Amino acid sequence: MHVVVNAAMSADGKLASRRREQLAISGREDFDRVDQLRADSDAVMVGVGTVLADDPSLTVKDADRHSARLDRREPKNPARVVADSRIRTPPDATVLDDDAETYLLTSEAAPTDFIEQMEEAGAYVLAAGEDRVDLTTALAKLEGEGIERLMVEGGGELIFSLFEAGLVDELRVYIGAKVLGGRDAPTLADGDGFVESFPELALESVEQVDDGVLLTWTVEESDS
Amino acid sequence: MHVVVNAAMSADGKLASRRREQLAISGREDFDRVDQLRADSDAVMVGVGTVLADDPSLTVKDADRHSARLDRREPKNPARVVADSRIRTPPDATVLDDDAETYLLTSEAAPTDFIEQMEEAGAYVLAAGEDRVDLTTALAKLEGEGIERLMVEGGGELIFSLFEAGLVDELRVYIGAKVLGGRDAPTLADGDGFVESFPELALESVEQVDDGVLLTWTVEESDS
Ligand SMILES: NC(=O)c1ccc[n+]([C@@H]2O[C@H](COP(=O)([O-])OP(=O)(O)OC[C@H]3O[C@@H](n4cnc5c(N)ncnc54)[C@H](OP(=O)(O)O)[C@@H]3O)[C@@H](O)[C@H]2O)c1
Ligand SMILES: NC(=O)c1ccc[n+]([C@@H]2O[C@H](COP(=O)([O-])OP(=O)(O)OC[C@H]3O[C@@H](n4cnc5c(N)ncnc54)[C@H](OP(=O)(O)O)[C@@H]3O)[C@@H](O)[C@H]2O)c1
Repeated sequence: MHVVVNAAMSADGKLASRRREQLAISGREDFDRVDQLRADSDAVMVGVGTVLADDPSLTVKDADRHSARLDRREPKNPARVVADSRIRTPPDATVLDDDAETYLLTSEAAPTDFIEQMEEAGAYVLAAGEDRVDLTTALAKLEGEGIERLMVEGGGELIFSLFEAGLVDELRVYIGAKVLGGRDAPTLADGDGFVESFPELALESVEQVDDGVLLTWTVEESDS
Repeated sequence: MHVVVNAAMSADGKLASRRREQLAISGREDFDRVDQLRADSDAVMVGVGTVLADDPSLTVKDADRHSARLDRREPKNPARVVADSRIRTPPDATVLDDDAETYLLTSEAAPTDFIEQMEEAGAYVLAAGEDRVDLTTALAKLEGEGIERLMVEGGGELIFSLFEAGLVDELRVYIGAKVLGGRDAPTLADGDGFVESFPELALESVEQVDDGVLLTWTVEESDS
């Protein structure tokens, strides 16, 4: 499986303000790039924190890209994947609508009636991990479902865990022309943080997009 | 006064790991650039958090740059400035050595005996603000001392306050090829964070330096 993390951050590394409200960090050109990246993916993944904060659709917006996918015998939209250990995704969340398939990655701690409720809403529930989603196992299960190209859109908690588990192949970061500040604002990689053996990146490209910059990094193989 | 904030952050916007230990984010080429920027400044400023974490010298390292400064009838090193409301700078801090002049920006809350101790150590103590350094007043006092070109090296608490007070003219950020992660790790701009009227930047240049990228932004005039 090839895992690409894509996110937009402010010049000071924040995904959103401390209020965790969605905020336009990038502009039209970057939205179009993200739409293409979604269209080129088998699935688009977020953490439940992003579902709760932004209620995103995660679908492809451009009609030509839908047609191109259908021509390739792919579904109109890539599948959606939510990492949600105990199922906090609300039954009326947009990711549960009929526009795309949806996988809920949960843990053994997810209550049975919530699982049933999600399955009734049409979602596929995959359990991996005791208390929290075990991402290595969960991504292997997704691969078993035919998902080879996984795009991850955030947030910072999920992105950190994916780096920690050594699962990220590529990092694409749009850096916007704003300062958000805030010691409690979400950043590109939150979690507990590394204190040694920091994941090392290699810069693949630098591009000016909208008022900001798009950096594409590949993740170096770790020694461990 | 012209205020340039210069800092090195990881690809995910952190100035250091959550342990707040100094960490090489950039490489030799960037160190050299920073040394030149120091040599081109009248003073180099940090918050007391950085003094306590890193005990930096903040002096110019290259001998030719010392000579060039002396040729221009400037002191060998730019002055050092520490924002330190209650004087937590230890008497044996490197910023108090004889290699450069040092200004301590304090508030009315700084204990008299600490002020005397700092003055005995050779520092100039400038008070501004009741409980915390009032940066607008303090920078005006520094300007009164002949400081026109101020370089700010961090950390994130001080940088946020400078943006909040509308005092930053330029932001130079080196983005390194590492992921540090950590919801409690220091970021380029911490503080309480903005929730509206975010400072807007304009991208002046993008340059590949060492394994990373140097972004130079100017700060747009705010409406307020
Ligand atoms: N600018 C952008 O590109 C962008 C993109 C996305 C999001 N955002 C912003 O990011 C913020 C949300 O980010 P966030 O970091 O709070 O949430 P997040 O990463 O979207 O979701 C985190 C949640 O995922 C669940 N999860 C399940 N398994 C996990 C694992 N192994 N590791 C980590 N998390 C796991 C956890 O909840 P459970 O344990 O309960 O399952 C965790 O609290 C919002 O403000 C949103 O606007 C911005
Ligand atoms: N990568 C880099 O380029 C770089 C550069 C510098 C620092 N760092 C890292 O950053 C970390 C330290 O950053 P930090 O944010 O904790 O500390 P900081 O910004 O260096 O210092 C913050 C302190 O300054 C004092 N201060 C006085 N007046 C202030 C005002 N008006 N606004 C804000 N602060 C004021 C406050 O203490 P009082 O109220 O007690 O005075 C405050 O706690 C360390 O881990 C260091 O290694 C990295």
